[in-house]
Amino acid sequence: MVNEKMRGLGAHRSVIRELFEYGKKRKAEIGAENVFDFSLGNPSVPAPDGVNKALSRLLEERDAVSLHGYTSAQGDAGVRRAIADYIAKTQGVEMNADLIYLTVGAAASLTISLSAVLNEGDEVILLAPFFPEYRVFAERTGAKVVPVLCDPKSFQPDLAAVEAAITERTRAIIVNSPNNPTGAVMTPESARGLADLLAKKEKEYGNAIWLIADEPYRELVYGDATVPYLPALYDNTLVCYSFSKSLSLPGERIGYIAVSPKAEEASAVYAAICGAGRALGFVCAPALFQYMIPEVLGMTADISVYDTNRRLLYNALTEYGYEAVYPDGAFYLFVKALEPDANAFCERAKGEELLLVPSDSFGCPGYVRISYCVTTEQIERSLPAFKRLAESYQKA
Amino acid sequence: MVNEKMRGLGAHRSVIRELFEYGKKRKAEIGAENVFDFSLGNPSVPAPDGVNKALSRLLEERDAVSLHGYTSAQGDAGVRRAIADYIAKTQGVEMNADLIYLTVGAAASLTISLSAVLNEGDEVILLAPFFPEYRVFAERTGAKVVPVLCDPKSFQPDLAAVEAAITERTRAIIVNSPNNPTGAVMTPESARGLADLLAKKEKEYGNAIWLIADEPYRELVYGDATVPYLPALYDNTLVCYSFSKSLSLPGERIGYIAVSPKAEEASAVYAAICGAGRALGFVCAPALFQYMIPEVLGMTADISVYDTNRRLLYNALTEYGYEAVYPDGAFYLFVKALEPDANAFCERAKGEELLLVPSDSFGCPGYVRISYCVTTEQIERSLPAFKRLAESYQKA
Repeated sequence: MVNEKMRGLGAHRSVIRELFEYGKKRKAEIGAENVFDFSLGNPSVPAPDGVNKALSRLLEERDAVSLHGYTSAQGDAGVRRAIADYIAKTQGVEMNADLIYLTVGAAASLTISLSAVLNEGDEVILLAPFFPEYRVFAERTGAKVVPVLCDPKSFQPDLAAVEAAITERTRAIIVNSPNNPTGAVMTPESARGLADLLAKKEKEYGNAIWLIADEPYRELVYGDATVPYLPALYDNTLVCYSFSKSLSLPGERIGYIAVSPKAEEASAVYAAICGAGRALGFVCAPALFQYMIPEVLGMTADISVYDTNRRLLYNALTEYGYEAVYPDGAFYLFVKALEPDANAFCERAKGEELLLVPSDSFGCPGYVRISYCVTTEQIERSLPAFKRLAESYQKA
Repeated sequence: MVNEKMRGLGAHRSVIRELFEYGKKRKAEIGAENVFDFSLGNPSVPAPDGVNKALSRLLEERDAVSLHGYTSAQGDAGVRRAIADYIAKTQGVEMNADLIYLTVGAAASLTISLSAVLNEGDEVILLAPFFPEYRVFAERTGAKVVPVLCDPKSFQPDLAAVEAAITERTRAIIVNSPNNPTGAVMTPESARGLADLLAKKEKEYGNAIWLIADEPYRELVYGDATVPYLPALYDNTLVCYSFSKSLSLPGERIGYIAVSPKAEEASAVYAAICGAGRALGFVCAPALFQYMIPEVLGMTADISVYDTNRRLLYNALTEYGYEAVYPDGAFYLFVKALEPDANAFCERAKGEELLLVPSDSFGCPGYVRISYCVTTEQIERSLPAFKRLAESYQKA
C-alpha cells in the first residue's frame, strides 16, 4: 500500500518532535506559562535586527522577478563567493566558491552529503551521544550506522574506541561540535587526534573516510572555548553549516555544504553533492534567504542569554544533586537521569510539567537533554520543579 | 570514493539546467538582449504585489522568534487549514488540513510522495512527454519508470496505451495538467476516462495505484479551458502543488502535498509522507513563506502576458512552417523539430542564439520545448531568428 519504512518514520516521530507536539497540546490545556518545555532546539532569542532589515531591503529594492526566481541549483554565485571569502577570512583556510552548495538547512546538508558519499553497505561512525536524525539520514542511504561512545567524563571522542570501530567499510564519520545533545566542544587536541587517526586509517585501507562536520552551533560558544575548523586539520572534510541557530532562523531552512578544496577529487565529490540535491528534490535553496546571507555573515543573535541560562541551570541543577558535564557550547545540558531508565525519568518529570528529552535515541541511554534556548525567566520559574523532582528521588 | 549514481546526476545536469547555464554564459559574452533564452520555466512576470506586501508585513508585525522558528514538520496548522478550506471552496471537494503537508516546492512534493508510496521494483507510469526530473525522482526510490506516449495530435493520454502498460507492479502514475512540456490541459473526458481505468485496474489487481497529480500550472490556463480536479474523480490521488509558477516565486520553494481524504488508509499514506519528508531532510517548509500563503491564496501573477505570448508565438511559428499543438495552459509550446534529431536542431538554433530544449529527455524525441514565460518583447525580437531557422531547412 505504502512504503512501510517511511510510514514507520512518520508514525513514530522522533522523540524530540513527539515531545514538542505534546508540549503544544499541554500548553493549550494549562497555559504556556505552566509548562516548562525544554524539548526543542528552537532559539528563544530573536534574530539580529540585521536579518529582518536585510530581508525587508531585498523585498523593497530588488526586482521581484530576479529576487524570487530560480538560482543555479548549487546556489547564487555571488552568495557562494561571499561565503567562501568569509570562511577564508575567519578560519584562515583556502575555500572555493565552486565547492560551496547552498541548502535548505543542516538536515538537507546532511542528507545530501551522505547520499553523495555513501553506497549500500558502507559504514558510518556516529560519535554517541548523537542527534537521533543522523541515524535516519544515514540508514536511508542503505549504509550501516556504527555508534561509538564518547568519554562520559568530557564527551570528547574516545579515540581508541573510534580506532577499534573503523573497518575497511567505514566511509564516513559525523562530528558535531559544539555538540547536540551534550554541549561539548571538541578540544584542539581531540580534533587533531581524530584527524590523525582518520588519515592513518585512510592510508591503511586505501579508502577515503569522509569527515562530515555538522556545524550549526559553531557560533554558539561561551567563555574562552574555540571550535577547531576541521578542514584545516583533515583533507576529506565536508562542512555542513546552517544559519538556523546562530541567526535564530530554524524555520527558514538555509545553510550550506562546503567541500574542502584539499579533498581527494573535490570536484567529483561536489558533483555527487549536486546530483544528490537534484535526486532528493531540493532544486535550490530559498532565493530570498540566499541573498540575505552576504548581508548577515558574522552576525549572531544575542547569545549572551544562552550563556546566562547555561550558568543558571548548571549551577542550580548540580546543587540539587543532578550530574552533568559543564557545556562549552550549543544550548543543551546533558544530565544524568535520576533512575536508570531515562524514559521513566522523563515521564515522571512530566508530572512537574518539565519536558525533557530522554537520551536513548541519542545512542547513550540514561541521560536527558535539556534545551536551554528558552527565556531565562522560564529557567528561573522551572527551578523549583527540578528541585522537587530531585527530592522525590532522594526521599525514595 | 563517492556515490557514482549521484556523481553522474551531478556531472550531467538536466538538459534544461545545462542550457540555462549555457544561456547565462552566452549572455555575459554577447549581451542579454542578443540571446533568446527559452530554456527555463522561470516566470518573467513579477509576483503579484500582495506577495511582497504580505512578506513585508509579516517581517514588520510578527514576533521574530515565532515568525522564524520551527513549525511542525508537516507545516503550520493554521496555514494547512487555510489551504484545505481554499481547496474545498474552489474545487467543491472535501479536504482535510491534517492531510496537507507543506513542502519546499513541487520537486520536494514529488520526491516525498514517491518515497512514501513506492518500494524497490515497483512500476511508475509517466505520460510522455514528461518533465525529465520525474525519471530521476522515481528511479531514486528503486522503482522502474514505464513511459506511455500521449496522443501526438492532442497530447491527451492514450488510454488504451495506459491500460496496456499497467501491470500488477504498477503502483503510481504521474499526471501533469496543465502539462510541461506540451501546455496541454487534460480534458474532463480524458480525466474521467483515466480515473475509471485506474479504478478498474486497482480492482483487477487488488492493489492501490496512486495518481500523483503534479499541479504547479493549475492556475495557468487560457481561454475557456478548465483543469479537472483529480481528487474529485479518483480516490487514491495525491495532489502535488507549488506556488512557484502561479505566484512567480520559483526560487523560494514553497508548495504542498494534499492527500485525498477519500484515499485508502489516507492517514497511513500521510504518515508515510511525513516519514519520507523526515528521511530526505526537509524538516519543515520555510516558515516565512508558509505564513505568506493564507494571505495570497487565489492570487496569481499577471498571466495575461503569457496568453499574449502564447498567441504571438504560436501564430508566428505556424506561419513559418513549424508544427505545434495549440497549448491551453502552462507556458510551454511543444514544437516539432525541423529535422529528426531534436538535439541537432537545437544546436543549429543556437546559431541564431535561440535556446530551445530538445525533447529526448522528455521521453518523446523529435520535438523542442519553448518556454514562453519571457517578455513579449523577447518573443517579438526572436521571431526573425525563428523565421531564418525555418528557412534554412526549407532551402536545404
